[in-house]
Amino acid sequence: MSGIDALAARIRADLGPDQVLTDRQQLRTYECDGLAHYKVIPALVALPRTAAQAAAVVRACAAAGVPFVARGSGTGLSGGALPHADGVLIVTSQLRDILEMRPADERAVVQPGVINLQVTQAATPHGYYYAPDPSSQQICSIGGNVAENSGGAHCLKYGFTTNHVTALEVVTPDGELVRLGGAAPDVPGYDLVGAFVGSEGTLGVATEVTVRLTRLPETVRTLLAAFHGTDQAGAATSAIIAAGVVPAAIEMMDALSIEAAEAAVHCGYPAGAGAVLVVELDGPSAEVDAQFDEVTALCEKNGAFEIRVAADDTERQLIWRGRKSAFAAVGRISPDYIVQDGVIPRTALPEVLRRITEVASSQGVRVANVFHAGDGNLHPLVLFDDRVPGEAERAETVSGAILDLCIEYGGSITGEHGVGVDKARYMPRMFSDTDLDTMQLVRCAFDPDGLANPGKVFPTPRLCGERPGRRQGAFEHEGAEVF
Amino acid sequence: MSGIDALAARIRADLGPDQVLTDRQQLRTYECDGLAHYKVIPALVALPRTAAQAAAVVRACAAAGVPFVARGSGTGLSGGALPHADGVLIVTSQLRDILEMRPADERAVVQPGVINLQVTQAATPHGYYYAPDPSSQQICSIGGNVAENSGGAHCLKYGFTTNHVTALEVVTPDGELVRLGGAAPDVPGYDLVGAFVGSEGTLGVATEVTVRLTRLPETVRTLLAAFHGTDQAGAATSAIIAAGVVPAAIEMMDALSIEAAEAAVHCGYPAGAGAVLVVELDGPSAEVDAQFDEVTALCEKNGAFEIRVAADDTERQLIWRGRKSAFAAVGRISPDYIVQDGVIPRTALPEVLRRITEVASSQGVRVANVFHAGDGNLHPLVLFDDRVPGEAERAETVSGAILDLCIEYGGSITGEHGVGVDKARYMPRMFSDTDLDTMQLVRCAFDPDGLANPGKVFPTPRLCGERPGRRQGAFEHEGAEVF
Repeated sequence: MSGIDALAARIRADLGPDQVLTDRQQLRTYECDGLAHYKVIPALVALPRTAAQAAAVVRACAAAGVPFVARGSGTGLSGGALPHADGVLIVTSQLRDILEMRPADERAVVQPGVINLQVTQAATPHGYYYAPDPSSQQICSIGGNVAENSGGAHCLKYGFTTNHVTALEVVTPDGELVRLGGAAPDVPGYDLVGAFVGSEGTLGVATEVTVRLTRLPETVRTLLAAFHGTDQAGAATSAIIAAGVVPAAIEMMDALSIEAAEAAVHCGYPAGAGAVLVVELDGPSAEVDAQFDEVTALCEKNGAFEIRVAADDTERQLIWRGRKSAFAAVGRISPDYIVQDGVIPRTALPEVLRRITEVASSQGVRVANVFHAGDGNLHPLVLFDDRVPGEAERAETVSGAILDLCIEYGGSITGEHGVGVDKARYMPRMFSDTDLDTMQLVRCAFDPDGLANPGKVFPTPRLCGERPGRRQGAFEHEGAEVF
Repeated sequence: MSGIDALAARIRADLGPDQVLTDRQQLRTYECDGLAHYKVIPALVALPRTAAQAAAVVRACAAAGVPFVARGSGTGLSGGALPHADGVLIVTSQLRDILEMRPADERAVVQPGVINLQVTQAATPHGYYYAPDPSSQQICSIGGNVAENSGGAHCLKYGFTTNHVTALEVVTPDGELVRLGGAAPDVPGYDLVGAFVGSEGTLGVATEVTVRLTRLPETVRTLLAAFHGTDQAGAATSAIIAAGVVPAAIEMMDALSIEAAEAAVHCGYPAGAGAVLVVELDGPSAEVDAQFDEVTALCEKNGAFEIRVAADDTERQLIWRGRKSAFAAVGRISPDYIVQDGVIPRTALPEVLRRITEVASSQGVRVANVFHAGDGNLHPLVLFDDRVPGEAERAETVSGAILDLCIEYGGSITGEHGVGVDKARYMPRMFSDTDLDTMQLVRCAFDPDGLANPGKVFPTPRLCGERPGRRQGAFEHEGAEVF
């Protein structure tokens, strides 16, 4: 019996025969996540139904020295759930129960396979919702959100997944079930919940997630402001934040993404717009009404030539439809595209957008911009046609140059999609060797054998078991500047 | 030359002669922090003036195998900065520059010795402030706040230090300067800023802190509501939160703490009050005005017999004076007292307060309660007279029983003062051995020799260099329940 066959037999014994897949056709279903140009077929897939079963799978992997990768719904865009060819893929989709719903305490306890939107659906009758809202919220899992510290349009006001998870049960890479964090606002000891959220599967597998529930706002008001170009829309964004208003969301689309959305869903955005902002305010009616007037005035002052206010929920949905469809809609105007994800200081928006256009022009490719303007989280869509020789390479060049711009302006190589397999090579542009070594101290502490999602996040896995050499004077900050 | 003499010579060579203290009288100045009944004279005090000097001190300690403890202003209440008798105390008070003030980016970069209130003072002309406000904010240092993840009255709405620090420069226990985090909302890699904030000096020494600045609110409104007892005041607190209002602060004082404050500062709180709530709302005027009416109505509905609204800033200061003086004021009615710090679910407030009274009565001691009601962060003051034989012991018994109550109700053994040396023995009541072992994986990764603030936080330092034994089925959650 080969090593994998023996492992499969052990896991079958623990989980039951139906919970382990080894048939190549079945395995192929899991060969990629949302970043579909990376494909690897795993050696086997395990589908635990309980936390104890998940721990048993990890223990079996640890005993056999076989790598493992956890996967939720597989919607990630950085290849974080890309399988390992000689490893086990642990699919959490059968850990799908909402274990507790405690609105009076503003907490819910869910299994990792629960779909993001289901938490909100279960909380809504009690007057609450789960705030982080990735675009994929109808299908992405809470476990995946934890791994990638997922964001969404409303993270400007409400923060990322890390701000909404207060406790975790996780399987450590040696197969132990431990509790991290608690429900109190400040739990003693190290904040390992914070370290685990966003660790992209490299510190273990979450088996239970305690999330904060957020009170449904009394009022939500949404407007669409049309500008002649992104400079004006960027200036309006900065002006709104500078005025002390924190909208629930400020989303920007440029001319090319408007064109794509229009072609796909006929959202009827104002003709001739070089950029639009979708601004949403929520909260107590008294506050929202006052701030809404302020936002409207600031948009006008910064050059908005048309402002539409959603009169009801239907109109609100219509405004959002264009924004939410934009990624898919780009398929209407380009056969292929790369979704990039980077962060810049909000105040640098107009300048960076201009420079992205310059880079794109120099390579003869087009870039559509549709993004979370409020927190400077860019999502440039680099368009190309894979059938045209050299075009994919030029698109890759532009995509990489955009990350360099993000770093140059003091931002980050990822806003919410994670590093995964896709951006590990960019980490040294943002962090010094010493900084990366320090992060990997934690990796080595939890996973000395490097079995938990190897090859993700870190460009060069460091050998565990030794402290990094002390480099006198080697301290050099290549990282993010303040913004 | 003894080991300490050699170390002193080396550090003097790096820092200059005036920056190292070895005279016993001078050392005595640093024998305790705010928890003054623990006293230890350090072997040597180092006063670095730059981050590089701080790193040099730690490197010297690492080379000599000598423990070190960092100290800011020494206001901590859990003995986190208690020196080690054979170790070096690194005092950060000369690292006191505000390095950058960038209101447009909502960030400031400060050295660890900068006083909390100075950040707000420097930001105020730009329309911003630094939100975490420990009661000691006029003297406590940002570095100390980082170590203890300090809170304050306004953390109900604004969160703790960890929510306001986005990047750190730290000296790791082997003396390397590294950067953790960045300025972007979601920095790739592990969130080591989160793990470092609140690590109480056990992972290294912060030498530079990037903090978030918060926009000054347009309006602040404060009321004082008087109730016949804590049951009613607790119910009003729950009702306010349940209504979806998040005040900047909800503070509660019981009859005994009101009596003490009255005796000390003549704050003129309503006569006959068995409990008062101080409720502060801030934000846009439109919101505050609407919510203020709601809060007033909820207080009345829950039995407030008198409500005073501060008409101006002077009246506001008067309301706060009683609350802010309460700790010191207790000295008027009792020669000695223990300041306890624990967390319970807000919804359990009335019940837990009743049980605290029962426990106190059974031991024949009095407990004054003055605390952050909004987030369930209790600060019971256990009164005793050290001259009466056995009374100190009975007070200790009550103080410990209060922590047991906090755990029983799913809370935490510390809300904002930290574990330090004082509560390390209570950690096993809140965490299982496996949970504590997992935390210490991080400690061992950063500090395998256990030189950084040894004896704090963890009751039993685990030997580094080996993974904890795997305990099949040993998983048992003794920790916090959801609330």
